[in-house]
Parts: sequence; C-alpha cells; structure tokens
Amino acid sequence: MTKYRIGIDGGGTHCRGRLVDNQGNLLAECSGGTGNVYSHYESALSEIEKVITELYTLANLTVDEYGNSVLVAGLAGANVPSVIQRLTEWCIPNLQHKIVSDVETACFGAHQGEAGAIFICGTGSQGAIWDGQRFKLMGGWGFMLSDLASGASLGQKALRRVLLAHEGIIENSPCMNHIMSSFQDSPEQMLLWTQKAQPRDWAHYAKVIFDYAKRDDCNALCLVKQCAAEAETMIQALIHTSRSDIALFGGIAAPITPWLSDEIRERLIEPKGDALDGAILLGKRWWG
Amino acid sequence: MTKYRIGIDGGGTHCRGRLVDNQGNLLAECSGGTGNVYSHYESALSEIEKVITELYTLANLTVDEYGNSVLVAGLAGANVPSVIQRLTEWCIPNLQHKIVSDVETACFGAHQGEAGAIFICGTGSQGAIWDGQRFKLMGGWGFMLSDLASGASLGQKALRRVLLAHEGIIENSPCMNHIMSSFQDSPEQMLLWTQKAQPRDWAHYAKVIFDYAKRDDCNALCLVKQCAAEAETMIQALIHTSRSDIALFGGIAAPITPWLSDEIRERLIEPKGDALDGAILLGKRWWG
Repeated sequence: MTKYRIGIDGGGTHCRGRLVDNQGNLLAECSGGTGNVYSHYESALSEIEKVITELYTLANLTVDEYGNSVLVAGLAGANVPSVIQRLTEWCIPNLQHKIVSDVETACFGAHQGEAGAIFICGTGSQGAIWDGQRFKLMGGWGFMLSDLASGASLGQKALRRVLLAHEGIIENSPCMNHIMSSFQDSPEQMLLWTQKAQPRDWAHYAKVIFDYAKRDDCNALCLVKQCAAEAETMIQALIHTSRSDIALFGGIAAPITPWLSDEIRERLIEPKGDALDGAILLGKRWWG
Repeated sequence: MTKYRIGIDGGGTHCRGRLVDNQGNLLAECSGGTGNVYSHYESALSEIEKVITELYTLANLTVDEYGNSVLVAGLAGANVPSVIQRLTEWCIPNLQHKIVSDVETACFGAHQGEAGAIFICGTGSQGAIWDGQRFKLMGGWGFMLSDLASGASLGQKALRRVLLAHEGIIENSPCMNHIMSSFQDSPEQMLLWTQKAQPRDWAHYAKVIFDYAKRDDCNALCLVKQCAAEAETMIQALIHTSRSDIALFGGIAAPITPWLSDEIRERLIEPKGDALDGAILLGKRWWG
C-alpha cells in the first residue's frame, strides 16, 4: 500500500525533491545539485539519491518505509532514447519508481493531470503534450539544432546582429552599442568569448534585448519579433496537436507574451501547478 | 633589387605557393598543409616555410637569393588582431615579407590591383574591399557569430528545419526526409553528430539544399531564399561601401547567384585572377 509519494524535479542547475503522505500532506522538501541525466548521468543520479535520503531523514522516516513509497522523477535529459535505456539500470532497493522527462512532470503539474500542453522557453526550449494517456514532446534537441524562442538562441541571434551593426553591414542602434561595449567594442573579444560560452551565457543577453525592445530600439525590436514568431510556431503546433490550451514556462515566457498575437494569447492559461506537483500527481495516477 | 617574387595563399586545408621572376614568369609552384594561422599558428607557419624552401629547390635557386626576393602571404586567420600582432615575430632571414589575410590577396587578385570588392561564401563567409590604398574586411568572425550566406550556416539552418519537419512542427518535404534518413530518422543520432561537427561538416548539407530547391522542394526553397537574402545583405553593404562591382568566390557563389535579385546580379563581375595572383601583385606594388 502506498503511504508516501516522492516527487523529484531535476533541472540542469539543481534538483528539488518533495515527500508527501497519501493524503497529499507535505512531509519534507529539499534540493540538491544537477538533475540533468543527459549531460551529467552519474552525478545527477547521485544527487537524486542524496535528495531522497534527505527527504526521509527530514520526515523522520526510515528506509523500511521504501516499500510503502513510490517515486516519480522528472529529469532534464530523460527524453533522449539512449538515456532512457540506461536509466533502466537505476534503482533504490524496495522503492518503486518511474523516471520521466522534466517537461512531462511540468506538463502534468500545469494541468493538474488533465489533458493539456505546455511550452517551456528558458535557456533552451521544449514543448510537451499530455493527452490523458501519454506524453508527446516537441523540440528540446539543444542549442545547435533546436530550441526555437529560447534565451540562448535569442542571445546568439543578438550577438550576430551586434557584429553586423558594428561593421556597418546593417543599421546600428543603442542596444547594439550597449552589447558591443560589453566586449570592449572588440569583435575578437567576442570571438574569444564564444569559444567558452555555454547556452546559459548566450541566454544572458536575452534580457537586454527585451529591455531595449520596450524602448523601440530597431534592432532589439527585430530580434524580439523574430523570437515571438518562433514561439508562435511552437505554440501553434502544440495547440494544433493537443487541441488544448497551453501554459508557458521559463525565463522567456513572461517577456515574450506581450509580443504574441491576440489569437495565441487567448489560448494561454496560467499553470495550475509546477513540475513537483506533476511528479507527485503522476505517482498517484500510477500507483494510487 | 627585387629579382624574385613569392606569393602564398594559405587556407584552412592547404596552402599554395608560387615563385615568379621580376618579369612575372612562372618559376615554380607547389603546395603544403594548412595555412590557417588563427586555428593552427605553429603548424601553418611551418607548412609555409616548407613551401618556400620547396619553391626555391624547384626553381634551382639557393637561399642566397632570399636577399633578392620578396614574399607576400595571404593567410586565413591573419585578420584577427592578436594573430597579426603575433605574426610580427615571424621571419625568414634576409627575405622581405608581408603577411595579410587571404581575403585581401583574393580581393587584390580578383581586380588585378584595381579598386574593387569581393564576397567569399564557402564553408564560412567574408567580404573584402580594396579602395586603392587599403583593405577593409566585413564579416568573417566564424560560424557561431557571423558567416552570413555561408555553407556552414546554411547547413545548420537546414538541420534545424529538418528536425522541425520530422516532429511535425512545420510542413515536411522530400528534402527534409532525405536528410533525416541520413541520420537513420533519429534526432538523437543528429544530436550526437552535432557534438563533433565542424563547420565543414555542417556545410556538407548545403549542396543537398540547392539540389532540392531546383526541384521546388518547399523547405529547400525557403532555406535557399534565406541564404540569398543573407548574401544580398553582405553584397549590398560591400557595394555601398566600395562603390564598385563585386566578384563572388567560394562553394556557395555559383549556386546562390541565380537566386539573387537582378539589381545585385548586374553588379557581379568575374574575378580577373585568384589569391596567388593577388599576392604576387601586392609584392610588385610594395617593393617594385
């Protein structure tokens, strides 16, 4: 009999855990390091094991209760087939578990288990649909191949444009000068920076672009409109496939919303819960 | 007194060398490994030294003639300020020399020393202008930041589009299916491929796109039109700044030309010579 449910939300920077009883009462919450099983398989699982142990300690439960507990973990990277395959090796003795992608738990939480869709646009981007039976994901194949309307991709387009403006190939503007000055007006400094830049570093420039777009900077406007068009491509495909309303998540969600068409904005809803809620609810669905 | 002139054209894959007498008569030609001083500083210079030695051997000249010779080398990467600075250390005793960027020698050769502009669109892309006194370069800051209308950037846009079509986010087409099948229809295979892909690997897909565009494939057409628009941005800036006609170089030059506007195509001219011609001519200009 299920007496306890554990939910894990594993993202790139850290993972969070929550333990509730079978009435849904909160018993413990804590967090650990990276939960991304694509880029950090071993350490992500080790962090998750630590979080689970800590949840039990915080709730004054012993490992004897593992047999009365179920675990659902939504982990970044757990959408990649080879990673899913490898995850079948992982277990904690006596503890029933399922691992899904963090976008799946986020989608389930956003609609409280009802059919629905979400689009996460943060550093990367990915869409997810829950049709009542199963999940379907869209996008999420990373910075070089995918991630429409993500912060990283907006940042990269911005820096490309900054260089074009710096060299007089396109019209310059205060926003472009502002970013170029952060590289001491040196294309070479920018080039050196790119050799070490991670997606989150590119995404850092997204905020500047949104700020200048509000002030009608011509280049920032152009970049934000392009980002909005990309978001609409993803959102429209998600609405079309799911035939449902959609919740947006991630750092780009709020700033991009005013730039979306009325038609799209009418289909947006506030998420009813987060990925941890989704993980706990999935545990209830799967094991009661 | 200058009796001999040496020209070097140093590209990413190999460098070529030519030795002529002061009448311009060809005495020797040969080639060696990479001439890219940005990505392979030490080995590029070592290759160039080997090429020079071989030119003298082939022409039955001894090192005593270095004092009567001048060298101009146009090298990939010799547009980056820190590389230019470092190149001031390099010399061959008694041999007068100047090192410029390979786009500069290509520009000088294309217009036989007259004022003019070029746009090179191969794996990467870069523009150059010779105004009769000095060179001005545009673009050429690499795959992540620059390289409008390059093969690598076209290939990357193509693969992004292939994944969107594969997931049903945009309309699919034979061209997209063709490329996806080269990854066994597996987004994960594509993702793994990108982790090692160099610009030339991305550029490999440019040919497929141009082939399918001729057959009116909707996605290939969209990609080629975008590439043509990027080429026009660069060409228009080069025409505007140089007030001259322009020669195109590189693997994308021929396939993109039919997609350019009439207005732009009227400003295109055939290059009168190549980068080796340019290097030899620059030697004549600088030292007589």
